[in-house]
Amino acid sequence: MIKAGIIGATGYVGTELVRLLKNHNNVDIKFITSQSYIDKEYDSIYENFRDVFPMKCTEQNVELIANEVDVIFMALPHGIASKEIDSKILEKTKVIDLGADYRISDREIYENWYNTSHLSSELLDEAVYGLCEINREKIKKARLIANPGCYPTCSILTLAPLFKENIIDIESIIIDAKSGVTGAGRSLNIGTHYTECNESMKAYGIASHRHTPEIEEQLSCIANNNVFVSFTPHLIPMNRGILTTSYAKLKDKLTYEEVKKIYEKHYKDEYFIRLTKENVLPETKWVKGSNFCDIGFKIDDRTGRIIVVGAIDNMIKGAAGQAVQNMNILFGLDESTGINGVSIFPV
Amino acid sequence: MIKAGIIGATGYVGTELVRLLKNHNNVDIKFITSQSYIDKEYDSIYENFRDVFPMKCTEQNVELIANEVDVIFMALPHGIASKEIDSKILEKTKVIDLGADYRISDREIYENWYNTSHLSSELLDEAVYGLCEINREKIKKARLIANPGCYPTCSILTLAPLFKENIIDIESIIIDAKSGVTGAGRSLNIGTHYTECNESMKAYGIASHRHTPEIEEQLSCIANNNVFVSFTPHLIPMNRGILTTSYAKLKDKLTYEEVKKIYEKHYKDEYFIRLTKENVLPETKWVKGSNFCDIGFKIDDRTGRIIVVGAIDNMIKGAAGQAVQNMNILFGLDESTGINGVSIFPV
Amino acid sequence: MIKAGIIGATGYVGTELVRLLKNHNNVDIKFITSQSYIDKEYDSIYENFRDVFPMKCTEQNVELIANEVDVIFMALPHGIASKEIDSKILEKTKVIDLGADYRISDREIYENWYNTSHLSSELLDEAVYGLCEINREKIKKARLIANPGCYPTCSILTLAPLFKENIIDIESIIIDAKSGVTGAGRSLNIGTHYTECNESMKAYGIASHRHTPEIEEQLSCIANNNVFVSFTPHLIPMNRGILTTSYAKLKDKLTYEEVKKIYEKHYKDEYFIRLTKENVLPETKWVKGSNFCDIGFKIDDRTGRIIVVGAIDNMIKGAAGQAVQNMNILFGLDESTGINGVSIFPV
Amino acid sequence: MIKAGIIGATGYVGTELVRLLKNHNNVDIKFITSQSYIDKEYDSIYENFRDVFPMKCTEQNVELIANEVDVIFMALPHGIASKEIDSKILEKTKVIDLGADYRISDREIYENWYNTSHLSSELLDEAVYGLCEINREKIKKARLIANPGCYPTCSILTLAPLFKENIIDIESIIIDAKSGVTGAGRSLNIGTHYTECNESMKAYGIASHRHTPEIEEQLSCIANNNVFVSFTPHLIPMNRGILTTSYAKLKDKLTYEEVKKIYEKHYKDEYFIRLTKENVLPETKWVKGSNFCDIGFKIDDRTGRIIVVGAIDNMIKGAAGQAVQNMNILFGLDESTGINGVSIFPV
Repeated sequence: MIKAGIIGATGYVGTELVRLLKNHNNVDIKFITSQSYIDKEYDSIYENFRDVFPMKCTEQNVELIANEVDVIFMALPHGIASKEIDSKILEKTKVIDLGADYRISDREIYENWYNTSHLSSELLDEAVYGLCEINREKIKKARLIANPGCYPTCSILTLAPLFKENIIDIESIIIDAKSGVTGAGRSLNIGTHYTECNESMKAYGIASHRHTPEIEEQLSCIANNNVFVSFTPHLIPMNRGILTTSYAKLKDKLTYEEVKKIYEKHYKDEYFIRLTKENVLPETKWVKGSNFCDIGFKIDDRTGRIIVVGAIDNMIKGAAGQAVQNMNILFGLDESTGINGVSIFPV
Repeated sequence: MIKAGIIGATGYVGTELVRLLKNHNNVDIKFITSQSYIDKEYDSIYENFRDVFPMKCTEQNVELIANEVDVIFMALPHGIASKEIDSKILEKTKVIDLGADYRISDREIYENWYNTSHLSSELLDEAVYGLCEINREKIKKARLIANPGCYPTCSILTLAPLFKENIIDIESIIIDAKSGVTGAGRSLNIGTHYTECNESMKAYGIASHRHTPEIEEQLSCIANNNVFVSFTPHLIPMNRGILTTSYAKLKDKLTYEEVKKIYEKHYKDEYFIRLTKENVLPETKWVKGSNFCDIGFKIDDRTGRIIVVGAIDNMIKGAAGQAVQNMNILFGLDESTGINGVSIFPV
Repeated sequence: MIKAGIIGATGYVGTELVRLLKNHNNVDIKFITSQSYIDKEYDSIYENFRDVFPMKCTEQNVELIANEVDVIFMALPHGIASKEIDSKILEKTKVIDLGADYRISDREIYENWYNTSHLSSELLDEAVYGLCEINREKIKKARLIANPGCYPTCSILTLAPLFKENIIDIESIIIDAKSGVTGAGRSLNIGTHYTECNESMKAYGIASHRHTPEIEEQLSCIANNNVFVSFTPHLIPMNRGILTTSYAKLKDKLTYEEVKKIYEKHYKDEYFIRLTKENVLPETKWVKGSNFCDIGFKIDDRTGRIIVVGAIDNMIKGAAGQAVQNMNILFGLDESTGINGVSIFPV
Repeated sequence: MIKAGIIGATGYVGTELVRLLKNHNNVDIKFITSQSYIDKEYDSIYENFRDVFPMKCTEQNVELIANEVDVIFMALPHGIASKEIDSKILEKTKVIDLGADYRISDREIYENWYNTSHLSSELLDEAVYGLCEINREKIKKARLIANPGCYPTCSILTLAPLFKENIIDIESIIIDAKSGVTGAGRSLNIGTHYTECNESMKAYGIASHRHTPEIEEQLSCIANNNVFVSFTPHLIPMNRGILTTSYAKLKDKLTYEEVKKIYEKHYKDEYFIRLTKENVLPETKWVKGSNFCDIGFKIDDRTGRIIVVGAIDNMIKGAAGQAVQNMNILFGLDESTGINGVSIFPV
């Protein structure tokens, strides 16, 4: 059994981790920590766990927990993990950080976009960007995994094969992304007050969202070239799900079948990536509650563009599910253990 | 492995059965039938199953399927199962009927409320009403199980202990029930067109809903007396979940603690029934996607009434999940096998 | 032109008042006050008013405002109006209080249910309960109007004729009420965080909601007898609308037609009360955005009960719209001036 | 009084026309026609009109109605208006067509994208594209107005000033549009069944949506050059509202202030177009239920792009409201008569 600690277990990502790890046959949850709910029983905070998981939340003492567990999941706002983690911790336990602190390898870019100082930048070189389908081999040997952001997961997975095969103009990339409201977390805010966001939609963070440099670094790495993208997230009145609609100029005229082969080449053995059939496009309902990333695309001969649509569950493939997938890789388990279910529908 | 056939696999209850049985370690789905999608692959109908469950739908040939399987699940509109099932079928296989045909033991009452003729009323005596927590012993030996309706499941479970202990006035019962829209099924209808039911609510079937006699028969049986109830269902703009708010006059003044003991007496060993703490009331989100039934209550000294609130997922404890629970009982498995998960939240 | 001041213009009820009064041909809004947004332009708070109503919010100086206006609307949490209003204010201006302070004539009952002290109880005798269709004559001459609560408006209007004609058992009344989330206001709260209340429903305040004594006082007054009710509100995942489903024992057997005549007797000349046809029940979408109260009912011969359903828009007939209706009565205008529109559908 | 006939009064656009015209002080609705509801009272179809507008629907006899009214509104699926309208009708009455038949001046393009034959293409030259803020002068003198599509209205209004001032690369235009479900109309369809589209989102009609050539023709006309766009609509789980997020390469580096002046130059006198302040972006809730089009933008120096966001109510500025605005222009009324209200919020 893998002994696990969850730091920040009472946020939305934290509770999704609790649920997934509790169901995972190879995991034993040893610690769940919280700042606001120390000593409270978990099922009095999230009552879906009523009578099923009454474990008490403890203080966020990472050093102490590191002594007792095989893996620590950090589900915290950016800036906290980098304060808590150092190489001594990593000598004791694996760390999967679901925050942003180790996702961007360039300290300066991180500090600019996040408007803060990085407190353990000496670990940036070591940290592995945990996008499983792209970095699997590196993940196997990692001590510190930076679990990708929700938008980057969907954006990068849908575009990677096009960059790998060098068929698109790297200056032409536009990613128009839409997310359900769980992406905004559990902190109270007028923008996520029910009556303020129900039955409305909006764009936010245009040309300034912090997932932009994360997407750009990974795509640049795949393209072997500096990629800059226009990335626009939108808030959509629904609980879960991310849909990205990405636009790119094709360097040459290609048919649907030709591009399909490219996707199949890279993804045909990936359990969690599913290509839709021609003329079928991903919808978030088909992935909600699952760790799948569905991808579909269309070629627009009139404009010479390819339009690729990706769909994930932002809390699962975009956060807790991918963290478990990373853990499975780290510990040599079958990659889909505990996260292989399909979406409940309609839910 | 239990070999299973699902008759009517492409409705909402059918697809929930497919999902639950596919995940069930002791079950092998042998047949899925459909009327509209014969020969179509299941994952082209419900794309959450993309690449995961591409089995083809076949014709609804119950006799043939009965030869090949250990259990048949019937997920059909009322009136069809009673045409298909006879004692010859029951000699070959167990049948769990998720429709209404065998829920009411009195043929005349059935025919009046459903405005139809019963085509296999000779089986009514044999059929066992599959409300697991109430009829477990009978279910174990049954060949034909009438899986309860969604509203009756929630209504009866919340009220049963009060009747068993004879503490309420049987003429005073009012059940005000609210359901999400999955309860109306997948058939197109102006009332369930998105823009017609989103952001609105309504009562329907007042004093005439077909679940009324089903509730009354079971409560009468428990009370050893003729119970008549006022039952009012409402349509609520959300996908899943039933909440029942039931009102009854207490025969004598009782405290919260005294009534709590009554509930505990009957339900303390029931995995799927969870009592909320004092001053905590059930919410559908805490049971959605799970097979739990959450129950909470309040005593109103001013009016001498007890108000009991129950919450279930109408598609699971109210349909497919309870059917699997019945199968588990029938085949001697642990009752929660394959259906023991908690709600995904927020979803 | 009626000069009006709105105290508490930046809550949800306040902004609905602003919208209705701005459209009202006989009203000139002179002051809008706020606690959090002093000196801010109204259209930077509620951007639906962009460029259309840029008036600045001022401090909540009731005495000063009373000198300048013909009517003051108070849209504040309970306990504040009773501090601000006294007979000197009433000598200068009419006051329509949309809070709870003057709704209950018995000071002790108010203080018990609201758990506070009343600071101007000397005005309780004078205050008129502003349920327009019931108290029209008193309203005409009032200086201080207690605008009814949202649930009481719907509950009382649906039940009043039955009490007036003495056809129901006063001990049998159960009111099961459901409300959209605007009823909870704009203050941040985990219970109204989007992802916590979307796609879920719950009961709250069972046997303890503060609208209970308000309903009971008015029904008692109409019945000429002490009425106690079981009142249960529910939170429903939608923005607007209240639906009440009320249950009462009929003293004698009555037909649908006989009861219909009773409703018509009392309401046939009321513009804002609309009876549905037989077998048609109110839905909140048909009244949303309007000042109408729709009423429908069914007689259940099996149980001897009448079930009455009422629907209103909680922000309009249940708050700001009825306040404008009260103003129209006070100032001798046609009662529907400025509030006669029908629901936008689908919205 | 302007005598008006509404052909197709029982669809969603039709009922919005009925609501707006019934409230319009200068309009007398003389005829409402329907195919499915002939001789039925309007308030039995749309019960928000209960007791307020009980007019009966009549047959769709355009010729006869043309004799009796000053203006006919056609709210029909494409292909029907072009069968019904000819120059004889236009000699008798003005026609405002809310369908697609006269929106595209090039018959061939229309026939290709709509996959049908045009039955009155001789009128295409005469028809005026009724985007009020762009074509006001032509509208004044028109007999036949092609009321714009919902997506084109929002797309063109947000981009027009950029084309007029020639500051963007015409080959770089991408319009990512999102719509609420009313855009799909009232016809039953599995895709708009409540439980199929609630809590999910999807793209549809990529590179093939019929509003594409409409947008391109108008933008080409403004740009004096052939404009081709990538246009992707999305279905969002909410009733009303369109949001367009448009991307364009700036020819030269421009500041926010410089671009703002361009928008102000073109729109400062337009009542229905509202620019948001810097760093404030349009949200559909602020325009829902109103005829406003809100526009905001951001300049992304990193990529050299401008991102412009527009928001409208698809049923009002995107359909019925703009039709009334066109009527107001046609008959010399103040352009905002009957449609000057702000959004109800929260609704």
